[in-house]
Amino acid sequence: MKISVVKNILEANDRIAQENRAIFDQKGLTVFNLMSSPGAGKTSLLEKTIDALKDQVKLGVIEGDIQSSQDAERIAQKGIPVVQINTGGACHLDGNMIRDTFKEFNFDDLDLLVVENVGNLVCPAEFKVGEDFKAMILSVTEGEDKPTKYPLMFHESKVLIINKIDLLPYLDVSLETIKKEALKVNPHLTIFEVSCKTGQGLDAWYDWLKEQVKTGRPA
Amino acid sequence: MKISVVKNILEANDRIAQENRAIFDQKGLTVFNLMSSPGAGKTSLLEKTIDALKDQVKLGVIEGDIQSSQDAERIAQKGIPVVQINTGGACHLDGNMIRDTFKEFNFDDLDLLVVENVGNLVCPAEFKVGEDFKAMILSVTEGEDKPTKYPLMFHESKVLIINKIDLLPYLDVSLETIKKEALKVNPHLTIFEVSCKTGQGLDAWYDWLKEQVKTGRPA
Repeated sequence: MKISVVKNILEANDRIAQENRAIFDQKGLTVFNLMSSPGAGKTSLLEKTIDALKDQVKLGVIEGDIQSSQDAERIAQKGIPVVQINTGGACHLDGNMIRDTFKEFNFDDLDLLVVENVGNLVCPAEFKVGEDFKAMILSVTEGEDKPTKYPLMFHESKVLIINKIDLLPYLDVSLETIKKEALKVNPHLTIFEVSCKTGQGLDAWYDWLKEQVKTGRPA
Repeated sequence: MKISVVKNILEANDRIAQENRAIFDQKGLTVFNLMSSPGAGKTSLLEKTIDALKDQVKLGVIEGDIQSSQDAERIAQKGIPVVQINTGGACHLDGNMIRDTFKEFNFDDLDLLVVENVGNLVCPAEFKVGEDFKAMILSVTEGEDKPTKYPLMFHESKVLIINKIDLLPYLDVSLETIKKEALKVNPHLTIFEVSCKTGQGLDAWYDWLKEQVKTGRPA
């Protein structure tokens, strides 16, 4: 019975996510869902990405946190539209929470909407929000075994951004092993190796992301 | 309705956790529930702790993972009883899962049972398993804002082990700020600052943990 409750919740969420997606498509808006463990660098990557792209791409951000609005405040300093969702304990964002933010945005004035999920390597991967694709960050400090131990997020993501590579000299961790393990779980992953601290590797991510933004809005 | 389902699940779990606890108490067994984000160092801390204490304290371990048995294999190499729980997707351990392992242990031959939870800074804090106390690890690489953003786990834990302090010279993170923020959420936290890699700070943790082990088993 517990399983059927969970299944019903996921199916209801999928329907809402599809409706969100239809609205995003109608507005010609590209949306991605950014997920990771706590502290892997989601907000830092967003800050860097906004600085790099904001003259070329009209960006908006939805910040998901259990409580607090620190991340939304960091993003707001960049001068782009940002809406905070506080889940009040819930471990992930869902389609309804995203829907509730629509009234706060003017989608006609955006090209790219980023949904920064709650920091959690498990639950957010189960809940679609209407995104075009999911992107995940893994910090090299988390170790080599994460793809095997938390496979769903690696499986669901289109992109894996391996962050904090500036720390590799001080860790007993191999970047090659991380990539090999991730590709075992999902051979289709596009992988970027970056340091949000030093900026290393970020240009390739910016270029790739710009290519994902939908061209040709509907009239 | 969704909320009442969650409430019913939590209440049912609390009852089972209480029953587990009664069994642990009857056997004079000390139990703690070890929680953290993925890759913060739960298994590494356990390996070090087993090496340090196994001649003085009879230890057993329950390993919780979504899938895979890598951690249980690491612990088994230490020659102590270990049981793997694979949650099959679930983001935390609960009382029933712990109950299901009892047949695998001889509790009369144990002093201390450690439950290593699924790597997740959110959900495990909501589910009691019958433990005497909860302990959490935070890696300094996760940043200073985690107590504010994930308060429940800090609130529910008796002990905070701050790990990977050997990396502090390479991070823009202050140990003092982490401690200050954690104590704002829970002023009763006992805090240890350690590096499982270098061994720094671990002796204080071992001494404290030995003091927690129940003395005087029932006849």
